Amino acid sequence: MRIAILNPNTTASMTDAVVRAARAVARPGTTVLGVTAAGSAPGIESPADEVLGAMAVLQAVHKLEAGAEPPHAYVLACFGDTGLAGVRCAARGVAVGMTEAALLTASLVAQRFAIITLPRRTLEQSVRCVRQAGLDHRCSVRAIDEPVAAVAAGSLHLLQVFVDEGRRALAEDHAEAIILGCAGLTELVQPLQLALGLPVIEGVAAAVTQAQGLLALGLQTSRAGTWSKS
Amino acid sequence: MRIAILNPNTTASMTDAVVRAARAVARPGTTVLGVTAAGSAPGIESPADEVLGAMAVLQAVHKLEAGAEPPHAYVLACFGDTGLAGVRCAARGVAVGMTEAALLTASLVAQRFAIITLPRRTLEQSVRCVRQAGLDHRCSVRAIDEPVAAVAAGSLHLLQVFVDEGRRALAEDHAEAIILGCAGLTELVQPLQLALGLPVIEGVAAAVTQAQGLLALGLQTSRAGTWSKS
Amino acid sequence: MRIAILNPNTTASMTDAVVRAARAVARPGTTVLGVTAAGSAPGIESPADEVLGAMAVLQAVHKLEAGAEPPHAYVLACFGDTGLAGVRCAARGVAVGMTEAALLTASLVAQRFAIITLPRRTLEQSVRCVRQAGLDHRCSVRAIDEPVAAVAAGSLHLLQVFVDEGRRALAEDHAEAIILGCAGLTELVQPLQLALGLPVIEGVAAAVTQAQGLLALGLQTSRAGTWSKS
Amino acid sequence: MRIAILNPNTTASMTDAVVRAARAVARPGTTVLGVTAAGSAPGIESPADEVLGAMAVLQAVHKLEAGAEPPHAYVLACFGDTGLAGVRCAARGVAVGMTEAALLTASLVAQRFAIITLPRRTLEQSVRCVRQAGLDHRCSVRAIDEPVAAVAAGSLHLLQVFVDEGRRALAEDHAEAIILGCAGLTELVQPLQLALGLPVIEGVAAAVTQAQGLLALGLQTSRAGTWSKS
Amino acid sequence: MRIAILNPNTTASMTDAVVRAARAVARPGTTVLGVTAAGSAPGIESPADEVLGAMAVLQAVHKLEAGAEPPHAYVLACFGDTGLAGVRCAARGVAVGMTEAALLTASLVAQRFAIITLPRRTLEQSVRCVRQAGLDHRCSVRAIDEPVAAVAAGSLHLLQVFVDEGRRALAEDHAEAIILGCAGLTELVQPLQLALGLPVIEGVAAAVTQAQGLLALGLQTSRAGTWSKS
Amino acid sequence: MRIAILNPNTTASMTDAVVRAARAVARPGTTVLGVTAAGSAPGIESPADEVLGAMAVLQAVHKLEAGAEPPHAYVLACFGDTGLAGVRCAARGVAVGMTEAALLTASLVAQRFAIITLPRRTLEQSVRCVRQAGLDHRCSVRAIDEPVAAVAAGSLHLLQVFVDEGRRALAEDHAEAIILGCAGLTELVQPLQLALGLPVIEGVAAAVTQAQGLLALGLQTSRAGTWSKS
Repeated sequence: MRIAILNPNTTASMTDAVVRAARAVARPGTTVLGVTAAGSAPGIESPADEVLGAMAVLQAVHKLEAGAEPPHAYVLACFGDTGLAGVRCAARGVAVGMTEAALLTASLVAQRFAIITLPRRTLEQSVRCVRQAGLDHRCSVRAIDEPVAAVAAGSLHLLQVFVDEGRRALAEDHAEAIILGCAGLTELVQPLQLALGLPVIEGVAAAVTQAQGLLALGLQTSRAGTWSKS
Repeated sequence: MRIAILNPNTTASMTDAVVRAARAVARPGTTVLGVTAAGSAPGIESPADEVLGAMAVLQAVHKLEAGAEPPHAYVLACFGDTGLAGVRCAARGVAVGMTEAALLTASLVAQRFAIITLPRRTLEQSVRCVRQAGLDHRCSVRAIDEPVAAVAAGSLHLLQVFVDEGRRALAEDHAEAIILGCAGLTELVQPLQLALGLPVIEGVAAAVTQAQGLLALGLQTSRAGTWSKS
Repeated sequence: MRIAILNPNTTASMTDAVVRAARAVARPGTTVLGVTAAGSAPGIESPADEVLGAMAVLQAVHKLEAGAEPPHAYVLACFGDTGLAGVRCAARGVAVGMTEAALLTASLVAQRFAIITLPRRTLEQSVRCVRQAGLDHRCSVRAIDEPVAAVAAGSLHLLQVFVDEGRRALAEDHAEAIILGCAGLTELVQPLQLALGLPVIEGVAAAVTQAQGLLALGLQTSRAGTWSKS
Repeated sequence: MRIAILNPNTTASMTDAVVRAARAVARPGTTVLGVTAAGSAPGIESPADEVLGAMAVLQAVHKLEAGAEPPHAYVLACFGDTGLAGVRCAARGVAVGMTEAALLTASLVAQRFAIITLPRRTLEQSVRCVRQAGLDHRCSVRAIDEPVAAVAAGSLHLLQVFVDEGRRALAEDHAEAIILGCAGLTELVQPLQLALGLPVIEGVAAAVTQAQGLLALGLQTSRAGTWSKS
Repeated sequence: MRIAILNPNTTASMTDAVVRAARAVARPGTTVLGVTAAGSAPGIESPADEVLGAMAVLQAVHKLEAGAEPPHAYVLACFGDTGLAGVRCAARGVAVGMTEAALLTASLVAQRFAIITLPRRTLEQSVRCVRQAGLDHRCSVRAIDEPVAAVAAGSLHLLQVFVDEGRRALAEDHAEAIILGCAGLTELVQPLQLALGLPVIEGVAAAVTQAQGLLALGLQTSRAGTWSKS
Repeated sequence: MRIAILNPNTTASMTDAVVRAARAVARPGTTVLGVTAAGSAPGIESPADEVLGAMAVLQAVHKLEAGAEPPHAYVLACFGDTGLAGVRCAARGVAVGMTEAALLTASLVAQRFAIITLPRRTLEQSVRCVRQAGLDHRCSVRAIDEPVAAVAAGSLHLLQVFVDEGRRALAEDHAEAIILGCAGLTELVQPLQLALGLPVIEGVAAAVTQAQGLLALGLQTSRAGTWSKS
């Protein structure tokens, strides 16, 4: 099985990180292909960045679909699921966003949970996904004010900041699990889980799992309306 | 890996059917164990039935947890997810309901979808799950007025009824996928999908996939609040 | 008129307290019967406790219904209204939960109000009732972290804790009335009302009043769908 | 105990009807006083009528409050609860609207229910009350296109129209109870209940019951915020 | 073009202020007419005040409509839009409330925003407007506890209080714009905008702009249902 | 004043039509500039088309902003407001979408209203805008199944189809106004209004009016969070 991990930003080190996260949970025999956006932004931090990122992943999908071995599944590896509907509509394979996957997964292990995203100006990207998933009655959104660039080469230096925000989510929002609100934060999962005593959900791993689950169930994207093939 | 499929009703033929559905999608090396409720009702059709079913599955979980080889995962195989929170709280392993799993899975392949449940008096069981999942803006609930007993020995004789209701869901609710709203309807998946041209989601298969996904991700039920161990 | 007060937990002193609360407001000529759950938990603090409590009250209702003088009304005396739908479905008489009754009553004397429940892990039981009643736009939920056992023999020692939490509800949630979020807190009503200058609503008294109101209006539980007789 | 029934319209026959409805359910020893609006409209059918009706009842309350024997409770006998907040704020006694009372009462005997109001242009008055009560997930609103004047002298001639609309509510909205959406329809309760096999709720009776329940519980309108005394 | 600015309270200095605010943004050639309520209250601070204010503006509209030169548009210059539906229904011209206009305008320049209203007891008036506009997912409501009288002769002395509350809205609610929650605060717009670095929206100016926009589009109030002519 | 009308699709005749619609309502002295997307699709009918359209308008804005005379305002002339947030973030001037403008305008002349969009597969684009505006409690969405191409050269041949769908909206949704759910339908406004007796709202005209209103009020897009300058 071939699965493509689409990174809508241009930071190759983040593509490497999300590919590692994907490989760590992919079922045996899966080929994981990482795609870094061309001509987009180093981090998807604004609505204009989102347009660039959506365009870049759409073009990447068109190229993969035209190739000899189109992927069976796509994972959109950017918190906010930028461009996801376009990917769904252009791809023959299934497509799953890291944000929606993290939300659905969290809902199975916790009644309430919190996203900790970054930077603060991207808050609405998370809120929009929470509303699309319908989970605003169970999920709060918090932000720490660091740019995406701050995690491009690793995120362990932000552990204490995430621990502090997670403790506030526990105390103020009654959060019972934490969703990491950016791609490339996999190395935070274990220490944060340990520090907070709560499940910590990383979206790329969750999305790979969901995408492979869809294929195991023999399901494909519905072509009956919203996501009909363009 | 051991996974227990909990049937809250007393109809053994339905347990057999859901175990078959589970085995068909379980990852290689999985032991699937079916449990039929003792002292419950032949079908969970009323709130009083739900109390009996919830009690029966809770007792079954306590027995399995006290055994030599407690399951790593539980699937609640009754549409309405009767007793799910109790199971989550009593089990060390993860627990997933067939209704929530079907809903989350549907949300990844269709923007809008419809549950077709039975009998009509159980409508609220589905509505309650849709609201808990937060998907009332994307999921409609329809019912056909057949008792659970009508599907205890197979459901193919109801195919045309489901096709008719599915067509109404497509026309009136703009449904892009269909969720089968009762356990034991696996044999309807393929012919209904063929007749409607829409993805058809069966909850037990979806729940097994979700439960195994949680384990693959190394996640456990949060013990921080609502579902803390009793 | 006969009214049965169902205590889903096994703590007889709490049954005594709720029966006293019921008698204090019951119309003249009412026989108030208290029922303590058998085989449940001393306090309903987790989803698993809720299953036990729901089963215990359902069995109690079946016994009363089979008796010579079945009650005209049932009051479920546990915050969270555990097992209420099952009771409605099994009983010929009307049935009212203390939580729903408190919420409806509060909505007639205040635009906004707050529940103060206990312990913290039961928060979701209250939230679930607020959503079922549809009052999340007017009612906040707060918890103090004391076990139900702490109020089994009286609650006056917690007055200051309730006053403090009530003041936060007033300042932060703009609460205009307070709902006591546990059975057996009747003795807090007057002193808390005095300290806060707000109406304080106790659910058992409210539920008795609502149940007797339904009978005065000649109304019975609808058997047309959700709560049809099993 | 003295209870005033406020009719915001100028049709005295409707005041007579609502006073009869109130007396039929008032607790023994209650003095029921009917008040017909002065200078308002014969039926409250438009937002401008609502302003007139609200003004008329506010003036009536001021007069009663200045009198020797101010009422212990007020019931607003107009579907739409026109001017209710003003009454609450001006009266020392409690105040209950017939619409909110009908909604709360219905929620205790049915999971879903429908209002049948008249005329069609007043639909929004009902919808507004349903949203204020938070019951839009359980209550549908239907209208028959007859003016309020059509029921000023009795409503039995409209029985078949209500039966037909009620059957549609049952079939299309899964309604399990019906709320009569206008004052003065008491004589429809029994025959409609018989024809539909569903509980039928009349708001004035419900409101009297709720108001007397509040007094039995020793509750008064909160003066802490929204409804503080002007 | 003639536009009437309706002040539902009796404070003539506030009428002067709102007329100045209206004239500052009215299109060239507009005649702006200010109307001070007769027989209402000096500030609309309670539901009873709202009834008086609604009645006063309805009577003013009837008088203007009966005059030789009825206005082409009405602006309701009271935060809370008291009596707006009545005005819409009585007037031939269009009618716009300052609260709805402020909300709609804010939604075009900010994803999230906050109302700062006064006094605290009027909070619900704002909340009601936010819900009618459907913007509760984007707009928070805050109150400072000053009476309307405090701003009758000017509001600059409250600048620091508004700045402090605005900073809390920015930090806690992620507000990106501020709505001034009372008529007569025009002189706060510039200094508050400067201090906070956020757009500040004044409702009377917004409403004049919206009303004139409706006329430019050739639109009139729909007479098909809710706001049909009485 | 310079205002740019952005057509995200490549059909020049639709640009001409929206420019005409804009000029018809623009204030005197306004320069209206039409921009046709390059490299997008002839109609924005799918999520993939939306990505292309968003990218095209973003590039158009960047070019205009880099020019000698950047516009003071932008109007996004595509139902669904594709790419609007990106435009807001890239432009110095204000930006308004035709869908949000139509919705806000409709809310001032009707309590309930309906969008009639096309083709059916774009339904979700409208639904998404309605939810972002918060108007799902007042606005229904209907679709006729004609491609955008069917209206590229004029829409009068579809009048009867719109009249029929409008009558259903009136009867079934209690719609009191109609929003035309596609750009380029200006010529339908008058005949549809006449046929239905309801206000008919065209979004481009509404958006021009809103954008010029923002400028008249001295407002600019907030740069404090979501739409901060990229």
